Parts: sequence; C-alpha cells; structure tokens
Amino acid sequence: MIERTPMLAQSIPDVIRTLNALSGILEKGAASAQARKIDPLVLTSARLAPDMFPLTKQVQIACDASKLGLARLSGIEAPKFADTETTFDELQARIVKTIDFLRTVTAESLADAEDKVVSFPAGPDRVLKLKGRDFLYQWVIPNLYFHTTTAYNILRHNGVDVGKLDYLKGADLLP
Amino acid sequence: MIERTPMLAQSIPDVIRTLNALSGILEKGAASAQARKIDPLVLTSARLAPDMFPLTKQVQIACDASKLGLARLSGIEAPKFADTETTFDELQARIVKTIDFLRTVTAESLADAEDKVVSFPAGPDRVLKLKGRDFLYQWVIPNLYFHTTTAYNILRHNGVDVGKLDYLKGADLLP
Repeated sequence: MIERTPMLAQSIPDVIRTLNALSGILEKGAASAQARKIDPLVLTSARLAPDMFPLTKQVQIACDASKLGLARLSGIEAPKFADTETTFDELQARIVKTIDFLRTVTAESLADAEDKVVSFPAGPDRVLKLKGRDFLYQWVIPNLYFHTTTAYNILRHNGVDVGKLDYLKGADLLP
Repeated sequence: MIERTPMLAQSIPDVIRTLNALSGILEKGAASAQARKIDPLVLTSARLAPDMFPLTKQVQIACDASKLGLARLSGIEAPKFADTETTFDELQARIVKTIDFLRTVTAESLADAEDKVVSFPAGPDRVLKLKGRDFLYQWVIPNLYFHTTTAYNILRHNGVDVGKLDYLKGADLLP
C-alpha cells in the first residue's frame, strides 16, 4: 500500500515552487535595471495603475498569503515581517524567510485541516470563513498566483524580459 | 465512512469558479467601455507590453488551459474552438462553451488520473511530461490563474474598476 501525503500537504511544494519562481522573476528585474541603467527603486515601486499596489506590496502579499494561509491551516504560528522592503534584495530576503517558515509546516500538522473551518480577515471590517480545503484552493493559492502574476506583469510592462516559463519554473517534469 | 470525490475531480468546481470570475471581470470591462464611450475593441485588443498577448488571447488561453488540461487528464475529447473572438460577447461565449465542456468531465473519468503520465506541448517544438497530479496543480491551474490575472491587469491598467474580490468571487464561503 502506498502512503500518500495528505492532500493539503501536497500543496506546500507547489507554493514553494511558485515563491522560487517569483524570486527568479525579481532577479531578472534587478538584472534588467542594472543592464539598462535604471534606478532599481523605479521598478520596485512601479504599478500598473495609480490606485494599485506597487511591486514591493505585490511580493509582500504573495509571501503573506502563503505564510498566513499555511499557518491558519496547520495551527503553527507564523513569524511576523514588517512591511518595510523597498529594494530587490530586501524582497528576496522576505521570500527566503517565507519559504523557511513553509518548510516547518509538516504533513502531520495538516492532517485534519481539510475539513476544519478557517476564519480569516478580508479587509479591515470583515471576517470570512471557509472549509480548510476550500480556504487553500479557493483563497490562499489563487491569491499567491494573483500577486505573483501581477509582479510579473509589472516588470513585463516595464520592459523586463520575463516569459511565462519563468512563472511555471520548477514543475516536476518527468524525463 | 465519508466518500470523498477524488482529489483531481475536486478541482473542477475551482476551475469553473475562476472562469466565472473571469466572465464577471469581462462584464465590468464591457460596462466600463460603454460608460466611458470607449470602443470596446480598444479594451479587448489591449496589452500590457507590445510583445505580450492582448486581452482576447489571454481569455482564449485561460479557457484552453482549462479545457485541454481536463481533457488530457480525463481522456475525454475536448471540443475545438477557432481563435476568432474579438468582442466581449464572443469572449463570454467561449467561456460558456468551456464551462459546458468542463461539466461533462466526471469524477470517474479522473479516478486514475493522479499518477498517469501526461504529455503535452509547450511551445511549437517541445513536448513535456508531468505526472497527472503535477500536471493539474503545477501547470493547468497556474496557467489558468496566470491568464485570468493578466486579463484582470490589462483591464485594471486601462481604468476598469475591478478589484481582487472579482477575481476571488464564488468561493464556497461558510455562513
């Protein structure tokens, strides 16, 4: 009999893969700024619309969606990060810290998470509830992909040479 | 004993949810064009970079990632769609046809898909292989979210009043 990792725990490598892909996309952003002699802060503070979050905040939220999502599901307390990053290096450090936390979330801690009710804030005045499975697959992971893709789009819009395979990088391809 | 829907089949409602969210985002785009007296084709052909796909193609690929992904996993043949949409109405029709197909994919047809090897084209000259589970969660679903978010970002960048809750709409919230 094959022991399978519980469904929710199977997602952790996918989340880490995506954060690593985001890291690679940011590396290309930093390299592009250097090559084109652009102040890197122009890129890290770039937005797609004046009332949308800049690149820094997109990365912060991609990290926090992952970190707080898995913390709520596992019951393991997540480290707090001050939202003070402005440079590419600082954003990379936040991704590393987030992945470090995700690696502490064990399959055992998620064994009963599928059916548990998760309450979480959505905006300043609202608390929502989802079943654990739905919280992960309808909220946490869509949020991670949303902010990773938006970070990608901000850089792509600003002339950074990223492609979709940078975003999909790290899939467990078979030979 | 609780009978659980097999893991891969559980994702179909999430895929349909996301396509419905994309439909709602496009509706807001069409309404915004009308309210601001902008030719809707300006929005459907808008891009975030000159060498990126326009909105129409983003929607076509979001649909095809879903349709071909589930077809490959289930072995059920997918309908072919000509990539000829230019208007918001035509894009909505494509989403409807895609969802109609996804509703024909049964849990039974996915029962053994988790471990099967899926081969799929990635670009014109390359065939990749992933295990069924990884194909769904590391390729199909990330692609769906990528193109849905990019469609959102194109409209948002062009002044359409969409917010992240339009993208997350339809989550199975508990009371």
